Amino acid sequence: MVERPNSPVCPPRRVLMGPGPSDVSPSVLAALGAPTVGHLDPYFLNLMDEVQQMLRELFQTENSLTLAVSGTGSAGMETCIVNLVEPGDRVLIGVNGVFGGRMADVATRYGAEVRTIERSFGEVFSTEKVAEAVREFQPKLVGLVHAETSTGACQPIPEISKAVHDQGAMLLIDCVTSLGGIPVEIDEWNVDAAYSGTQKCLSCPPGLAPVTFSKRAVEAMDARSSKVASWYLDMSMVRNYWSGQSRAYHHTAPINMNYALHTALREALDESLEARFERHHQNHLGLRAGLEALGLKYAVDESIRLPMLNAVLIPEGVDDKTVRGRLLNEFGIEIGGGLGPMAGKTWRIGLMGAASTTSNVLLFLAALENCLQSSGYQFTAGAGIAAANNYFSNVN
Amino acid sequence: MVERPNSPVCPPRRVLMGPGPSDVSPSVLAALGAPTVGHLDPYFLNLMDEVQQMLRELFQTENSLTLAVSGTGSAGMETCIVNLVEPGDRVLIGVNGVFGGRMADVATRYGAEVRTIERSFGEVFSTEKVAEAVREFQPKLVGLVHAETSTGACQPIPEISKAVHDQGAMLLIDCVTSLGGIPVEIDEWNVDAAYSGTQKCLSCPPGLAPVTFSKRAVEAMDARSSKVASWYLDMSMVRNYWSGQSRAYHHTAPINMNYALHTALREALDESLEARFERHHQNHLGLRAGLEALGLKYAVDESIRLPMLNAVLIPEGVDDKTVRGRLLNEFGIEIGGGLGPMAGKTWRIGLMGAASTTSNVLLFLAALENCLQSSGYQFTAGAGIAAANNYFSNVN
Repeated sequence: MVERPNSPVCPPRRVLMGPGPSDVSPSVLAALGAPTVGHLDPYFLNLMDEVQQMLRELFQTENSLTLAVSGTGSAGMETCIVNLVEPGDRVLIGVNGVFGGRMADVATRYGAEVRTIERSFGEVFSTEKVAEAVREFQPKLVGLVHAETSTGACQPIPEISKAVHDQGAMLLIDCVTSLGGIPVEIDEWNVDAAYSGTQKCLSCPPGLAPVTFSKRAVEAMDARSSKVASWYLDMSMVRNYWSGQSRAYHHTAPINMNYALHTALREALDESLEARFERHHQNHLGLRAGLEALGLKYAVDESIRLPMLNAVLIPEGVDDKTVRGRLLNEFGIEIGGGLGPMAGKTWRIGLMGAASTTSNVLLFLAALENCLQSSGYQFTAGAGIAAANNYFSNVN
Repeated sequence: MVERPNSPVCPPRRVLMGPGPSDVSPSVLAALGAPTVGHLDPYFLNLMDEVQQMLRELFQTENSLTLAVSGTGSAGMETCIVNLVEPGDRVLIGVNGVFGGRMADVATRYGAEVRTIERSFGEVFSTEKVAEAVREFQPKLVGLVHAETSTGACQPIPEISKAVHDQGAMLLIDCVTSLGGIPVEIDEWNVDAAYSGTQKCLSCPPGLAPVTFSKRAVEAMDARSSKVASWYLDMSMVRNYWSGQSRAYHHTAPINMNYALHTALREALDESLEARFERHHQNHLGLRAGLEALGLKYAVDESIRLPMLNAVLIPEGVDDKTVRGRLLNEFGIEIGGGLGPMAGKTWRIGLMGAASTTSNVLLFLAALENCLQSSGYQFTAGAGIAAANNYFSNVN
């Protein structure tokens, strides 16, 4: 029996270097705690307009239908699928990690005829493989994960997008972990729908899911013969609240969460996307230099590594939970364990948004050395920090 | 074209006396802005346990499956329906306002065979009427709105619950506006499922939806022959994240929103439910004394009025939008307009949670007099304040 608490909320200070949430900047936390106004207050309606406009910049799109769904990243996934797919529609999903599998599950639940193509966890799809499956299956929609949060692999999109569209299908991509950390070029890549989360490279607490839909995707929604099964996620109503003349009440938006997202987006754009991507890239390479000097190996081939999510193999003989537990309890550092077939075999080290700093790279490497020292694992003491610092001093 | 904003989020100070969100206390806002930890952090898992336990106290239930869904109140409605109803199941919904209509829409979208019984906006259902429809239609589930946010009417539940269960059906109630402001006695009333929102009488910003399910409802979920259509809201997975041995990752919970809810629940329980209900009751009566002294009339019969949501008829000749606009822009007070057939005909004046104060009653009455003075409406100047103060001084 849990007792009623008698002390206020007072979370410990963490350094969030897992697969998300990432560290949130003080200004975003301050915005989150600003006084609540009504969901139809002119101040809030204007803030929603600005959130949409900034999301368009992040997604690098002019898509009119671009907004933040009132749920976490998985609600964004569900929003894209439930609005674009009608029962019986053919949907092709690429499964090379947990989130591709989730996409297939969601589409199946809403009555789609789902076919999956599969790659091992940590690998990505070739254009040929996708093109072949699309030619054969002739789906209405193809779903791929741009940045697989479960494996740290980055799926190249532009060529595949061409192959998908050559066969008349639409393309949906999962950008939960990529948005704000590496380029996500919705218009340039000709992507029809994409969803993300706020708690990864945008460094806003979890609770909202940015989504964007192309003109073609909106036309497909408008041409539906059945109502969207989910009332809460039905874009035909949600979009009338987020834009248009009437600003018709649909549901009560998470007002303070939108304050926080607004602030996080403004900080990302003030930094500039180019500088932000470069920061993620350089801190990843610094971390890599340190990890490799300690003898650790990445779980994903260099050509497809995500800079913000470093999946490394746990050295033989080293206990996953002991190390993660010590990192958390002694150093306040959260990293992630493996998911699915990678459970117990990999660590997922995040360098996302505000957490992608040289300080965090060095702190993590130093703390990891401390934890590895008592594990029996053999390495040159200090080698990780030396290699990372060497990398950083050559860059700067 | 909306410009990228160059100023930080700085919302105006409002007095939230509409149909929700309500004023949020400084301690809840402070908790919202506390540093984010991971969604599987031991600190957060313990906080989730405490949120569940406190929600059980608010719902006056021992239901094990009691938690906060990661969406706003409408997501709570959808959660209850999508988990309890399978395609083809018969569902009877009482429609006497916007939210009953929404419940029928949600159940229809998920493939239920829906029958509605109807009452005019502002009225409630008799036990006889519900009992007759249940006997005739033999539904699996009956959905009723305990507190109709669109009309301010309170539906009595206990007798109807008996009639529903006598015929073997389950009972679902909408407590979005009632929870924390008037008694919601889930176990005593034998209710099988209920949902609420955080932004009404709990005075937490919008973004979470408390739900509770009886043992019988959980058994009905466990006996489903089809998967729940919504992956995001599927309680068979969500509940393994919120409780149980594994605390299996499902989605990333809105962590900071749960900090806020935790704080809001603790404040409600520290006040005691009895004192909180009495406070809502007395401030309602004070407001009523003032409104009646100004000649305004309630849209709902006295016997079924909600204390936290006062729907009054707009006097003839007085312009709805002018008055609400002046209240907002000159006094910072938000009240709500009417919804559906009540649009333009009623005002909805909320006295919810932290906003249910004697100060707010007096401020509102004084500001309303100011707005009515220039409208041509005839009333005795100062009569509203005099009557309210007279009421309060006799009580205290």
